[in-house]
Amino acid sequence: MGFPNTYEVAGAKVVIMARRVAIMGATGAVGSEFLRLLEERNFKMDSLKLLASIRSAGKKLTFAGEELTVEVLSADSFGDVDLVLSSAGGGLSKQFCPAAVAAGAVVVDNTSAFRMDPEIPLVIPEVNPEDIQKHKGIIANPNCSTIIMNVPVWPLHKANPIRRVVVSTYQAASGAGAAAMAELEDGARAFLAGEDFTPTVLPHPAAFNVFCHNSDIGEDGYNTEERKMILETQKIFHCDDILITATCVRVPVLRAHSESINLQFANPITPDEVREILAGAPGVKIVDDTVKNYFPMPLDASGKDDILVGHIRQDLSQPDGCGIELFVSGDQIRKGAALNAVQIAELL
Amino acid sequence: MGFPNTYEVAGAKVVIMARRVAIMGATGAVGSEFLRLLEERNFKMDSLKLLASIRSAGKKLTFAGEELTVEVLSADSFGDVDLVLSSAGGGLSKQFCPAAVAAGAVVVDNTSAFRMDPEIPLVIPEVNPEDIQKHKGIIANPNCSTIIMNVPVWPLHKANPIRRVVVSTYQAASGAGAAAMAELEDGARAFLAGEDFTPTVLPHPAAFNVFCHNSDIGEDGYNTEERKMILETQKIFHCDDILITATCVRVPVLRAHSESINLQFANPITPDEVREILAGAPGVKIVDDTVKNYFPMPLDASGKDDILVGHIRQDLSQPDGCGIELFVSGDQIRKGAALNAVQIAELL
Repeated sequence: MGFPNTYEVAGAKVVIMARRVAIMGATGAVGSEFLRLLEERNFKMDSLKLLASIRSAGKKLTFAGEELTVEVLSADSFGDVDLVLSSAGGGLSKQFCPAAVAAGAVVVDNTSAFRMDPEIPLVIPEVNPEDIQKHKGIIANPNCSTIIMNVPVWPLHKANPIRRVVVSTYQAASGAGAAAMAELEDGARAFLAGEDFTPTVLPHPAAFNVFCHNSDIGEDGYNTEERKMILETQKIFHCDDILITATCVRVPVLRAHSESINLQFANPITPDEVREILAGAPGVKIVDDTVKNYFPMPLDASGKDDILVGHIRQDLSQPDGCGIELFVSGDQIRKGAALNAVQIAELL
Repeated sequence: MGFPNTYEVAGAKVVIMARRVAIMGATGAVGSEFLRLLEERNFKMDSLKLLASIRSAGKKLTFAGEELTVEVLSADSFGDVDLVLSSAGGGLSKQFCPAAVAAGAVVVDNTSAFRMDPEIPLVIPEVNPEDIQKHKGIIANPNCSTIIMNVPVWPLHKANPIRRVVVSTYQAASGAGAAAMAELEDGARAFLAGEDFTPTVLPHPAAFNVFCHNSDIGEDGYNTEERKMILETQKIFHCDDILITATCVRVPVLRAHSESINLQFANPITPDEVREILAGAPGVKIVDDTVKNYFPMPLDASGKDDILVGHIRQDLSQPDGCGIELFVSGDQIRKGAALNAVQIAELL
């Protein structure tokens, strides 16, 4: 593949080692975004292999003007691969990532398969890039909602330790895959036409509705997505005593998640201090126009790399001045998944 | 109007005083619901007068098989009226409700015009019906989001005082009126057809998007809806020291609001205790199936009188056992507005 092996970042020339790359789950919502991002970011590769289950094998996808054929994913797929970007589902990751590592590849895994394994780093480049160095072949990419919360919350936590987080999410259909996005559109079309519609991908009608995130409910009553936000954040922050509770909810939005985040800090903090910290934070864009009532919206966040942060205010329910409320939106497929993984790959 | 002046409630015969009723704002989303509810609940009236601004005057509406003509609202509208159900907007309420009271009528006002006036009772029948007795002509109906939160939260507060509430809302278009509901549908249709759409009722595109509630942002950064939830709850509960913070957000849903509510109690409390208290609470229906991941959804709450409550769990971020998380959905037009006002009228 004919890419230059140098490119510019902030005026400096960066030379990238030649690499043979494979994408596991190339035909999914995140897989497609991997292709877009590798092209957009001019990611230096010697070869690109597209892998998917037998159902999608044989499909043709275009990358940088070249047509590539999707191959069947198997344990033998990785002999000529240095880097695997994996997003084919937790089951396939558990089955095939160890084979990729055994074949000498490094895997950035976008599923939940290895995230809570204490031996495997769980990385957001803006938060804990140093953890990448500890990898033994697999680096886990966090849950989308976790990433979207942690990118803006981490710089605040560094400036003033956060004691407790109460978060409620407004999650897009994309988190449940491309089929769920199509089902949301089909359901909306049927609803507007007054026709019956029975969802088959999501457990409840998505159009003109909201519902508890479609993951298993544990014995503690939390759904799995909520538990991920809690446990993954503690691991990424290297801070087991940060108290977190989450309510994860699907809303009829296509591809960007929003989150209402209530923070309790160790010490008093003002909205202006929060804005100042976030203005210099990587991966964050402040959208906080109180005159126009213009704050982060998923339609604005869609297709963007940055997490939008706004509606920043002093929490009136914390009279000690240690409370902040904020609202964020971030592209679930991009920074919530594919972009974060590609950024990890760039740091390797 | 030919209604019986007795009807049955729970097996007992109830005799209702004859009343001449007027609906202010009869052609709006809440006004239409007033008509439906008065008919459905067999509300005893001697006469029914429909009032609206000059724009809607002359319109014909059907009530109990009779055709009624909408009359122009003026200070002279109330000479032959005993009860006014008012939902024509805060400005018109300020202008005309005093005239109605001067003419001898009692007004149940659904706008924000008088809610925080210390002389005027602000009533949710399930919470503070006794406050009705203090009225001097006007009784204020709380904000929809406030009602939907308070109906399930009040019985918990009575059992175990609540110290702090962190709420994030998922609000339907109906709160911004019938035109906003139509705009959501039109916007969704345009989006699905790939056409441009410029909203004129709401400040941002509603379809496939979420945004900060379309009310003014105060100097403290909170929008007016958020401030209403805080201040109205303190007034209704007669409890100024309950700490509340709210984030109010519009989602692409037509007519039921949902809310993610995080509670901090004075004493430890378990999810089972919460379920037991709510099982016996008026106006509440528990929808809490953790096996099927079936919890309150706005599509289920639409057209219902009860507030649906579920996803009840011990808050993992309050290790003292004093924290509860729950999720509610309630019909914004019905219990959030028209039904609550009619229930107040029934108690008069």
